[in-house]
Amino acid sequence: MSKKTEIRIAGFGGQGIILSGYIIGKAAAIFDNKFSTLIQSFGPEARGSSCAAQLIISDSQILYPYLIVPDVSVILSRDAYDKFGKELINGGIMLIEKDLVQPDKPPKNVSIYAIPATRLAEEMGRKIVMNIITVGFFSAITGITSYEATRKAVESSVPKGTEEMNLRAFDTGYEYGKNLLEEGSKKKVKEVRD
Amino acid sequence: MSKKTEIRIAGFGGQGIILSGYIIGKAAAIFDNKFSTLIQSFGPEARGSSCAAQLIISDSQILYPYLIVPDVSVILSRDAYDKFGKELINGGIMLIEKDLVQPDKPPKNVSIYAIPATRLAEEMGRKIVMNIITVGFFSAITGITSYEATRKAVESSVPKGTEEMNLRAFDTGYEYGKNLLEEGSKKKVKEVRD
Repeated sequence: MSKKTEIRIAGFGGQGIILSGYIIGKAAAIFDNKFSTLIQSFGPEARGSSCAAQLIISDSQILYPYLIVPDVSVILSRDAYDKFGKELINGGIMLIEKDLVQPDKPPKNVSIYAIPATRLAEEMGRKIVMNIITVGFFSAITGITSYEATRKAVESSVPKGTEEMNLRAFDTGYEYGKNLLEEGSKKKVKEVRD
Repeated sequence: MSKKTEIRIAGFGGQGIILSGYIIGKAAAIFDNKFSTLIQSFGPEARGSSCAAQLIISDSQILYPYLIVPDVSVILSRDAYDKFGKELINGGIMLIEKDLVQPDKPPKNVSIYAIPATRLAEEMGRKIVMNIITVGFFSAITGITSYEATRKAVESSVPKGTEEMNLRAFDTGYEYGKNLLEEGSKKKVKEVRD
């Protein structure tokens, strides 16, 4: 059977959600010959400022591009959390924007990882790169797309002249994710020792 | 029967193709309660620098989000023209980037409209807005999404702080399209008189 990973990315317009999904999908296609679809559905609900994308990564061609229950959710706004926070498989991974999302009553048996992506982007002087920081964080935490493939996808997807800034943003998010995982494993070791 | 319009947007990475599809899809959803899906498929071919999106706009909910034969093609690179230039319905509309695409042997019974979107963006001092110029041109030429709805979709989809610049880019593309249509109808009148 072919392996299929379903990912939702949700937040508000202007956060660069579609581009971040595009980059992850491209990374999956570059890395290991995988297939990927990115879908954005608009209904009358698009009147608000909410924005969500569905990304499928698979070993084989994808005939049904809609997601059923996501394996990974990237939640970048309070509204998105209220709308999609409960929809995640058992054992799934949720990535959240630390300053925008307070995950009250999160689903059980889900690993939640938080990054202050907007703040980190502001510290870089370019709020616009928060989505690329999030892409780096996604790669570090989930490992679904490798560091190399994802970085290459960033480089080849952003406007000419902005590559350097965006690669720095990517590395910022990636390192934040790696540090978080290390701290987590240290904490677990400490818990076991205590 | 419900009315369905299929649109392909194709070019190379960094041209902002996904965002332009996103804005048009959003405009359709804002305007007249339509439904829309935007899909990006990546296969191993995503290794190159090509980028294409499939956009469906419909009066009713969309169950099959892939396009069959587009009603409108937006072609922003030579490679995209070679790959997709022939796929268009009889009587369809093709929008091209004037300086990047030379439509040799275009399909018969297709209306082709060209805009130097990259050059216009450079004249505005921001090459990055070429996709928004193209969105304005799309609205003016096809009328599939209205001026008001599309402009609103631009405003609510671009990063905060860049709205003014992007709305100017949108208007630039829209006016270029309107002028082109007027010239075309004047030319037709002249041809009839001659």
